[in-house]
Amino acid sequence: MNLNLADAVTIATAVRAQQVSAVEVAIATLDRITARNPALNCFTTVTTETALADAAKIDRAIASGQDPGVLAGVPFAVKNLFDIAGITTLAGSKINAENPPASRDATAIAKLKQAGAILVGALNMDEYAYGFVTENAHYGATHNPHDTNRIAGGSSGGSAAAVAGGMVPLTLGSDTNGSIRVPAALCGVYGLKPTYGRLSRAGAFLFASSFDHIGTFTRSVRDVAIAFDVLQGWDSRDPVCTQRSPVETLHVTSLQPDNIDGLRIAIAEDYFRTGAEPEALAVVERVAQVLGATQYVTIPEAHRARAAAFIITACEGANLHLANLRSRLEDFDPATRDRFLAGAMIPASWYIQAQRFRRWFRDRVRAIFQHVDLILAPTTPCVAPFIGQQTIQLDGREILVRPHLGLFTQPLSFIGLPVLSVPIARSNGLPLGVQLIAAPYNEGKILQVAAMLEAEGVIAASVVD
Amino acid sequence: MNLNLADAVTIATAVRAQQVSAVEVAIATLDRITARNPALNCFTTVTTETALADAAKIDRAIASGQDPGVLAGVPFAVKNLFDIAGITTLAGSKINAENPPASRDATAIAKLKQAGAILVGALNMDEYAYGFVTENAHYGATHNPHDTNRIAGGSSGGSAAAVAGGMVPLTLGSDTNGSIRVPAALCGVYGLKPTYGRLSRAGAFLFASSFDHIGTFTRSVRDVAIAFDVLQGWDSRDPVCTQRSPVETLHVTSLQPDNIDGLRIAIAEDYFRTGAEPEALAVVERVAQVLGATQYVTIPEAHRARAAAFIITACEGANLHLANLRSRLEDFDPATRDRFLAGAMIPASWYIQAQRFRRWFRDRVRAIFQHVDLILAPTTPCVAPFIGQQTIQLDGREILVRPHLGLFTQPLSFIGLPVLSVPIARSNGLPLGVQLIAAPYNEGKILQVAAMLEAEGVIAASVVD
Repeated sequence: MNLNLADAVTIATAVRAQQVSAVEVAIATLDRITARNPALNCFTTVTTETALADAAKIDRAIASGQDPGVLAGVPFAVKNLFDIAGITTLAGSKINAENPPASRDATAIAKLKQAGAILVGALNMDEYAYGFVTENAHYGATHNPHDTNRIAGGSSGGSAAAVAGGMVPLTLGSDTNGSIRVPAALCGVYGLKPTYGRLSRAGAFLFASSFDHIGTFTRSVRDVAIAFDVLQGWDSRDPVCTQRSPVETLHVTSLQPDNIDGLRIAIAEDYFRTGAEPEALAVVERVAQVLGATQYVTIPEAHRARAAAFIITACEGANLHLANLRSRLEDFDPATRDRFLAGAMIPASWYIQAQRFRRWFRDRVRAIFQHVDLILAPTTPCVAPFIGQQTIQLDGREILVRPHLGLFTQPLSFIGLPVLSVPIARSNGLPLGVQLIAAPYNEGKILQVAAMLEAEGVIAASVVD
Repeated sequence: MNLNLADAVTIATAVRAQQVSAVEVAIATLDRITARNPALNCFTTVTTETALADAAKIDRAIASGQDPGVLAGVPFAVKNLFDIAGITTLAGSKINAENPPASRDATAIAKLKQAGAILVGALNMDEYAYGFVTENAHYGATHNPHDTNRIAGGSSGGSAAAVAGGMVPLTLGSDTNGSIRVPAALCGVYGLKPTYGRLSRAGAFLFASSFDHIGTFTRSVRDVAIAFDVLQGWDSRDPVCTQRSPVETLHVTSLQPDNIDGLRIAIAEDYFRTGAEPEALAVVERVAQVLGATQYVTIPEAHRARAAAFIITACEGANLHLANLRSRLEDFDPATRDRFLAGAMIPASWYIQAQRFRRWFRDRVRAIFQHVDLILAPTTPCVAPFIGQQTIQLDGREILVRPHLGLFTQPLSFIGLPVLSVPIARSNGLPLGVQLIAAPYNEGKILQVAAMLEAEGVIAASVVD
């Protein structure tokens, strides 16, 4: 087992079978972080002591014949907006660094630990999750493991690069407008943004509440499934998760690659086939071909959906930070500060109109899912830009990098659809992703299709050894 | 039977027993409107022909032995924001007067007609329901039947004055921040604002959707109950009403005045006992005394609730009318125009904060209803001001009339509580009202208490013969 490349299921299987101890895995992981993190800048905190102590507990449990959990000994790390008991939750900011340490773990962390996983640290992000680049003015830029001159994407850049850089097989991130999917695509790993409200956000520092999702970065489809199963379940600490979400275990073992017969798969056209590099569209075609998908669907008014998502995000984010924007503007990251300030000046009438449009759009897209099970779209319009690069050329137009990498992700989180960004195996060139999009609560269909694509060798995480 | 003073149940009973024909009632009502409306200016449309035709149908049904409905022959009229098939829905505006006639009746009208009631016309209001005075720049001021130099209150001023002025026993209005309760109190009739979402708003021109309720004006408690029963029921045309509302018939006959034992009744203090004329507080004390209520409760942060209600209303109203505010500002009533304009310039951050507070406030008030069944509060801070009066003196402060008559009603509709404004029998002086406030879906408790107060002679509609 090469720990740098192994997925969570491989590690847990070995630990449970006592082929390797959880402490050995933890030590190797911490060593690897020490070796690789200086070049990648993924971790803002490494929880060495508690990781070793937790791993020792898992080993004792196994020695005494107890079930150590399905993720026994699997190292994981979390975007630094998740509460870790005893550590201050940064949310990528200098301002929150003044807060006292969190008193308890976020629900998602607690669930992974309960399943035997070992928390090894917290990961870099765009300040307050507002950006697609993870070039953080306070904590530095996270580097893409495939080319350290390039960004990892964001805002969960540290989470994606830690998995792609061979440091941990599993990380948590959050996705408001694409903050899981964009870095997953640019780093070449799996990034799951589940249905809105399905996984508890309790203990995560939110950004725009009605958009925020938590989700995972992994190296295999079965890891997407196993982590999702562990993370599911109602949570009295999260009102959204308590009220709405069905619990439906996906079972890693039920992922049969040949089990996609009868699924109606379509390719998103119009908006989702313009403003992108040809290679970003080509990977969608490749996936479609393997799946035998020839049908096209139009998600109507997707450009308006993105505009509405921008407005709501800016307004809700600005409201959340209004007191600090007024009293200590200079302590914000300049890149997020100006966007929050602009958000604070948007008239309520625009916000209300955007919410009104949102209901209309949700109903239109629901209607599409009457006739289609899965929709394919590119995750990003291009491969990872360079660190410090301000603009990109797309379709002959020069546009800003920071807000526009989410071109194809924003209209989907806007209405809470579950989406998995799958990494495309490219023999040359940097990673790219394809979004597998389903109706709410249909993560199962997505995973089924992903398992088939993985078995066919069309998709695969590209991890740097 | 004096038709000018009779309640709906009296009329329906007489019609059903063939003591008077529906056509005779309709003719008398239309004559009364012709005689009284010039002085009061309640009606913007009188539907003479269809009223007579509908009345004739009721009489034919009775003659042929069919059940003509529980409201057989009862004349009613509606605030002119309800769609009436074949008539343009004004919503108090000049702009909407250009719209084509409505193609079908609002659900509430259809339900009353189905129960045998006879629609006789549409009633004056503040433009787009934005105001508490019914001094409409396009259609004139509605006059208070008890003193025609005074306002009827608003925005459903025509609906209140038509019932108090002896023209019809039953009218429909709408209440966003107090637009049913304020004019009911100032005109001395019953005004019911039911639980948010319980009565269908389909076919009513809305103002601030998450606040808007429809409700009734009547001359007796049993009429409140019978109209509520007729109006209840899910409606596929109104998404709010479809999803949330239990149907629970209140049955006029079950209103037993002695049936309030065990109900825990409290008086709202602090906010609800300041900024009002002594007489407005005195009527609350009188009701409390008869009910044996000695407990006081504080509804926390009620002043903030009112501020938040103002912000949300202004923003949602401005959004609704934004296109017209941009293109034809001069066609608005100056009094509403300036408020909408101000609403269009409120930052989204304020609106979001107000919505955030709203959730907090709703939870606090729900907690109060764990220990209390009914809360008493004044409806208005004073009796009806004079037409044209710009300001009132309250607690030594001079404040604007138009937005401030809803001082005590706004914090309650804000969170959708059912409230009945009951008219206090005052031997001298102008009418005043008391709000009977309950937890959501507890209209039954309110009606029970109101029936007892009516039987005791503490409350009574004061109708001008």
